[in-house]
Amino acid sequence: MAPRKSSYQVSATPVTIFAHLLVVAVTVLLLVWLVDKREGLAFKSDNQLKIFNVRSFKQLHPLLMIIGFVLIGGEAVMAYKTIPGTRRAQKTVHWLLHLIALLAGVIGIYAVFKFHHESGIPNMYTLHSWLGMITICLYGLQWLLAFFSYVFPGAEISARGSFLPWHSFFGLVIFFLAICTAETGLVQKFIFLGLFRDQEALIVNFTGLLILLFGISVGLTVVLPTT
Amino acid sequence: MAPRKSSYQVSATPVTIFAHLLVVAVTVLLLVWLVDKREGLAFKSDNQLKIFNVRSFKQLHPLLMIIGFVLIGGEAVMAYKTIPGTRRAQKTVHWLLHLIALLAGVIGIYAVFKFHHESGIPNMYTLHSWLGMITICLYGLQWLLAFFSYVFPGAEISARGSFLPWHSFFGLVIFFLAICTAETGLVQKFIFLGLFRDQEALIVNFTGLLILLFGISVGLTVVLPTT
Repeated sequence: MAPRKSSYQVSATPVTIFAHLLVVAVTVLLLVWLVDKREGLAFKSDNQLKIFNVRSFKQLHPLLMIIGFVLIGGEAVMAYKTIPGTRRAQKTVHWLLHLIALLAGVIGIYAVFKFHHESGIPNMYTLHSWLGMITICLYGLQWLLAFFSYVFPGAEISARGSFLPWHSFFGLVIFFLAICTAETGLVQKFIFLGLFRDQEALIVNFTGLLILLFGISVGLTVVLPTT
Repeated sequence: MAPRKSSYQVSATPVTIFAHLLVVAVTVLLLVWLVDKREGLAFKSDNQLKIFNVRSFKQLHPLLMIIGFVLIGGEAVMAYKTIPGTRRAQKTVHWLLHLIALLAGVIGIYAVFKFHHESGIPNMYTLHSWLGMITICLYGLQWLLAFFSYVFPGAEISARGSFLPWHSFFGLVIFFLAICTAETGLVQKFIFLGLFRDQEALIVNFTGLLILLFGISVGLTVVLPTT
């Protein structure tokens, strides 16, 4: 992005609205997939035992990673363009949403480890698992570094300034890693389930496409000016 | 990337050197994989018949897509930071390398269709194939639009200027799509081959990691200043 922001001559606002719509679309597609096509989510089950069964942990992983980690993480990135009010308010929403996304990500990874443990499936041998572990570690590190620098106790003004472009760049890189990991996870699940051109295959692939489109939209709102 | 380029206070040069090293590393890993672990490449075969056999088309796909499309495409993106001489020379290398990458990508996609056709495997049902088709189409469109605007016959100066940030942004987005597609392709191949923690599994996963690192490095050279 060699040229300056202002040279785009388009406001970020319509792109943020498009990104919000994609959040709704991905959420709906994901819930249709998990509730209708897969074994359902724990809180939807008629069988009380299912709430603590192995399958619910399996379902929790894509739910928490995509809605909790990717979509809420993306909303956190866009906070400086979407939240009305002072920059202070935008900043608070930014780090709070990132914290929620981080916690959802950690619980989502815990869920898949627990599912693997209870089903006797080995851990951490796929590229998806490697990318995911790298992403969550970098996400946590980035959050901690930024919290200490910009929220509490806060670094000196000059350090804040020179750290900011790196914070933005690596923030987008980590977000890009999260999206890449989600795509590999969907492809992996698709093949493990042996899907092929049926309704479920289309739901999984379109979820992947819309997540990518969401990622591109979030990236665009970062380079576009507010007004 | 809200702040301006100059605020990074680091030159792009060391990052371009790191990216070149990654090009070498990915190429070596990929050749080790395809020649040593898989069925070998056509030009390596003792059996002359193998040159035109089905397996060689299968092997050509990852070779052309990763070395030809992703690595050469990345070098094309970096041309403005790596090629010494005039901006005109940099520009020529930029569009020529992108043309080579585009042609390699088209032949690479042809190779996998031919392999599928000859093996009776259906086409275009995975997210990997969808992402790949979208990527190559956008890559070709971006190349044509840029060629007509900046090389021949060339748009008016004002149009060139206002189009440039969009060219850079969508160029990076398409490059990001190519990397995402490569990652999903490696994950897909990994599962179809039933790999699990052996040497070949590690080679495939590390190829994926280094491609991602290459993508991040190329993205960083775009935002960093030349000196």
